[in-house]
Amino acid sequence: MATRQLKLGANLAGVGNSISFWRHPDVPIDASVNLDWYKKHAQKAEEGKFDLLFIADGLYINEKSNPHFLNRFEPLTLLSALSAVTTNIGLVATLSTSYSEPFTVARQFASIDKLSGGRAGWNVVTSPLEGSALNFGKGEHPHHALRYEIAEEHLNVVKGLWDSWEDDAFIGDKANGVFFDPAKLHTLHHRGAHFSVQGPLNVARSRQGHPVVFQAGSSEPGKELAAQSADAIYTAHETFEEARAFYRDVKARAAAYGRRPDDVLIFPGIGPIVGRTEREAERKYEEIAGLVEIGQALDYLGRYFEHFDFSRYPLDEPFPDIGELGSNSFRSTTDKIKREAKELGLTLRQTALRASTPRSAFIGTPEQVADRIQQWFEGGAADGFNVRTVVPGGLDDFVDLVVPVLQRRGLFRTEYESDTLRGNLGLPVPPNRYAAARAEAAAGLSRP
Amino acid sequence: MATRQLKLGANLAGVGNSISFWRHPDVPIDASVNLDWYKKHAQKAEEGKFDLLFIADGLYINEKSNPHFLNRFEPLTLLSALSAVTTNIGLVATLSTSYSEPFTVARQFASIDKLSGGRAGWNVVTSPLEGSALNFGKGEHPHHALRYEIAEEHLNVVKGLWDSWEDDAFIGDKANGVFFDPAKLHTLHHRGAHFSVQGPLNVARSRQGHPVVFQAGSSEPGKELAAQSADAIYTAHETFEEARAFYRDVKARAAAYGRRPDDVLIFPGIGPIVGRTEREAERKYEEIAGLVEIGQALDYLGRYFEHFDFSRYPLDEPFPDIGELGSNSFRSTTDKIKREAKELGLTLRQTALRASTPRSAFIGTPEQVADRIQQWFEGGAADGFNVRTVVPGGLDDFVDLVVPVLQRRGLFRTEYESDTLRGNLGLPVPPNRYAAARAEAAAGLSRP
Ligand SMILES: Cc1cc2nc3c(=O)[nH]c(=O)nc-3n(C[C@H](O)[C@H](O)[C@H](O)COP(=O)(O)O)c2cc1C
Ligand SMILES: Cc1cc2nc3c(=O)[nH]c(=O)nc-3n(C[C@H](O)[C@H](O)[C@H](O)COP(=O)(O)O)c2cc1C
Repeated sequence: MATRQLKLGANLAGVGNSISFWRHPDVPIDASVNLDWYKKHAQKAEEGKFDLLFIADGLYINEKSNPHFLNRFEPLTLLSALSAVTTNIGLVATLSTSYSEPFTVARQFASIDKLSGGRAGWNVVTSPLEGSALNFGKGEHPHHALRYEIAEEHLNVVKGLWDSWEDDAFIGDKANGVFFDPAKLHTLHHRGAHFSVQGPLNVARSRQGHPVVFQAGSSEPGKELAAQSADAIYTAHETFEEARAFYRDVKARAAAYGRRPDDVLIFPGIGPIVGRTEREAERKYEEIAGLVEIGQALDYLGRYFEHFDFSRYPLDEPFPDIGELGSNSFRSTTDKIKREAKELGLTLRQTALRASTPRSAFIGTPEQVADRIQQWFEGGAADGFNVRTVVPGGLDDFVDLVVPVLQRRGLFRTEYESDTLRGNLGLPVPPNRYAAARAEAAAGLSRP
Repeated sequence: MATRQLKLGANLAGVGNSISFWRHPDVPIDASVNLDWYKKHAQKAEEGKFDLLFIADGLYINEKSNPHFLNRFEPLTLLSALSAVTTNIGLVATLSTSYSEPFTVARQFASIDKLSGGRAGWNVVTSPLEGSALNFGKGEHPHHALRYEIAEEHLNVVKGLWDSWEDDAFIGDKANGVFFDPAKLHTLHHRGAHFSVQGPLNVARSRQGHPVVFQAGSSEPGKELAAQSADAIYTAHETFEEARAFYRDVKARAAAYGRRPDDVLIFPGIGPIVGRTEREAERKYEEIAGLVEIGQALDYLGRYFEHFDFSRYPLDEPFPDIGELGSNSFRSTTDKIKREAKELGLTLRQTALRASTPRSAFIGTPEQVADRIQQWFEGGAADGFNVRTVVPGGLDDFVDLVVPVLQRRGLFRTEYESDTLRGNLGLPVPPNRYAAARAEAAAGLSRP
C-alpha cells in the first residue's frame, strides 16, 4: 500500500472523557476500574484496526477531582492485562518523568513490550498538577521548565538502558555453557544533573527495539522534547488552522534536529460524536452536555489552574483575570483557555461549560466526521488521531460507522500491516546504539 | 472443610531456579522472557489448585549474574498479564521498599488487585544487592538495619494509602449527580523519617481489602517485620528442625504483637524433585547438578556475598574465612552458608556446588515427597510451601503426581474455596482503618 494512511489511537478512560459521562444511564459507574469495560473497548478498537490503545494518567487527586481521576486503574498494569486479550493493537501507557525512577520505568516498559510481543508505548508526561509533589515526598513541584529538563534527561537514560543488550547477545549455547556474549552487554554509567544510573538493565530489547515514545505536552519545551526525541506527539486542537500550524511547527523542529518528518507522528486528540443523522449526533451531544452541573464544571476548570476555586467569581461576567495562574501546570491548555475567553468574550459560565464538554468539531454523520478527518489528515494537520469516547457507545459508533468510510476512501487500513506497534505506525526499529557505533567504526576502518 | 489444609505457591522463574537449569535440553533458553512459558506454568498451577503464583525479583545485575537475572520480566507487568489468563490463583509480585515510592507501589498493587478481582499480593523485600543503589542514583545502599526501618515505614504508608476510600464511598447517584461521599475519602498526611506522602490514593480497595502482604527475609528484623505486619512469610530451610524452630519463633513474635497464629502464614520454599521411582528422581537431580560448572557455581555463591570473587581461593581447601562479608546483603542466607561450611567441614568447591544446586529434602516418589510435606505441615514447620521448579517439568510432576496424593490424604483442597487470594489463604479482609475507627467510636458512645 503506497499511499499514506492515517493512524488511530483509542484513548480509553472509563467514566472519564467528559465530566458528566458517568451520569448517563448507559455508563457503568465503575467503568474506570472495570476490566470488562476496558476489555470490551480494547477488543472493539482492535476490531476497528486501531493502531493503539492510549491510557492517560495523573498523580494527584482531591475531593474536587473528576470522577475518573478518583478511582482508576494504573496504566501499566491495565495495559499488561489487556495485552493478554488482544493480538495486534499497540499499548501506550502514560507515565511521568517528574515522579519516577528511570531504571524502573525502563524495566516496566521493556517488560510489557516483551510480554506483548513488541506492542508497547510510553506517553511521556511531566505531571501538571502541583499536588503531585505531596505524594512523592518532594517539597516542591518542579517548575515547568525544570520539569522538561528532567524529562529530557530521564528519557535519555531510559533509552540508554533499553540498549543494554544487543539483539544477538543471548547465545544460549547449552553444550558449552555459554548463555550470553559479554561483549554485547553494555553498562550505561550515566551521571547527569538529575539522575545517576549505572545499568545495565535486566530486560533485553523486544522485536520493536524500543517501545514507541509518545510525548503529550504542547508548550515550547514540550514541542522541543517531542521534536528531538519522541516518535509521536499527542496534542489537542479545536480548529484545523490551529492544528495545521502546530503540525508544521513540530515537523520543522524535527527537521532541525536532523530527523525525517515521518519520524515524529502527530496525533491530535478528537472526541467524535457520530449519529446516523446530524440531528442524532447533536442529540447525543446535548444529552451529555445537559448532564453537567455548573459547580462541577467550575471544579473541572479549576483543576487546570492548580485547583483554583472559581466559585467565588460571578458566573455571568467575563472570565476573570487570574494572571499567570496555570502557567506552571497544564500550560498549553491554560494559555488557550485564557486566550479564547478573551477573544470570544466568554463569561465564566461559558468558559467552564465549554471546557467541561467541548463541542467537538468532529460531530455529525459518519460521512461528515470522515470528511473532517480527511481534511485534517490530507491538509497537513495530523498523521493520526487519538479518539476519545465522549458519549456512551462513542467508540462503537466510530468503529462501526466511521472506520468503514475511511477504509472505503483508502485512508485507513483494512488489515494490520504488522503485529508490532512500530510496524503498524510505520516507524523504524531504532538500532541498538552500541551495535550501531561498532558498525560505524567498522565501516570507517574499511573505507578506502 | 474443618480440618486445616496446607497452602501452595508456585515460584515461577523461567530459566532461574537452579543455575544450570537453562542448559537442560528441555528448557527454552528464553523462558524468563517467554510469556507462553509463564502462561503454561500458571495454568498448570491453577489446574493443581495452587493458592498463588510467586515472582521473585532483583534490581542489579552484572556479567556474573545468573542467566535468569539477566533478562527477565518485571513482576507486576508479568502478573497483570497472567491475571487475564487465570481465574482463581493468587498473584504475588516481589517489590523492594528500598528503591520505590510508596505512592507508586500502593497504586500498582491496588490496580492489579482490582484487575484480578482480588487476587494480588506483594512480597516485600529490602533488596540485598549493594549494586542496586547504583541504578537508583543513591550514593550508598542502606545498611541492613536501616533497610528494615525503611521497609516498616514504607509498608505502613502503603497500607494507609490502600484505605483512602471506604468500601461504600462510591455512591454513583446519577439522578442527583453525586459520584461519591466525601466523608468516606481519607487523606493520609503521612510525615515520617523516610517518607512524606499526603494521599489520598487514586484507586479504591478491592474485594480483598488489601493485597496480601508477604515478607521474604529471615533475619531478626525480617522476622519482626513479618510478625508485626505481614500476612505471610516466605523463607528457606533445609531441615525440618530448622524450619520448625523458625515457625515457632515467628508465631511467638506474632502473638507478642497481639496477632493470632493464623494471621501470619509461614511458607518455606521447596524445590521438589519427583520421580515415579526413587531412582528416577535421583537421576533428575544428577542431570541438573551435573550441568553445573564450578566457575559458575563460584559466581553464584559470590553474588550472595556482594559479588565476592571466590575464584582466587583454592577449591579443595576449607571454605575460606571471609569475615563479615555478606551480612549487609542476604544476611540470613550468608550466615547459614558460613555456619554449615564450618559445621560440616566443607571445602569451597562443596560449598559452591551445594549452594548452586541444593539437593532438596523433597526428593523421591510422589508418596515420599507427600510424606515429607505432611511431616513439615503437621509437625509445625509450615503452613504452606512455595514450590520452585528446579528440574524441567518439575511443576507438572508436582501437580500430576504429588497434589493428588495430598488431596487423597485430605491435606489439600480439591476445589478453590474462593476467587480471592485472602479467601483461599483463609486470611481475613482487613477492615478499612477509618471505617473501623468510626465503628469503634460509635460502639463506645452507645456503650451503657
Ligand atoms: C493533549 C495532552 C495530553 C496530556 N495528557 C497528560 C496525562 O495523561 N497525564 C499527565 O500527567 N499530563 C498530561 N499532559 C500534560 C503534560 O504532559 C504536561 O505535564 C503539562 O501539560 C505541561 O505541558 P505543556 O505545557 O507542554 O502542554 C497532557 C498534555 C496535553 C497537551
Ligand atoms: C526466602 C527468601 C526469598 C527472598 N527473595 C527475594 C527476592 O525475590 N528479591 C529480593 O530483592 N530479595 C529477596 N530476599 C532478600 C530479603 O528481602 C532481603 O533483601 C535480604 O535477604 C535481607 O533479609 P534477611 O537478612 O532478613 O533474610 C529473599 C530472602 C529470603 C530469605
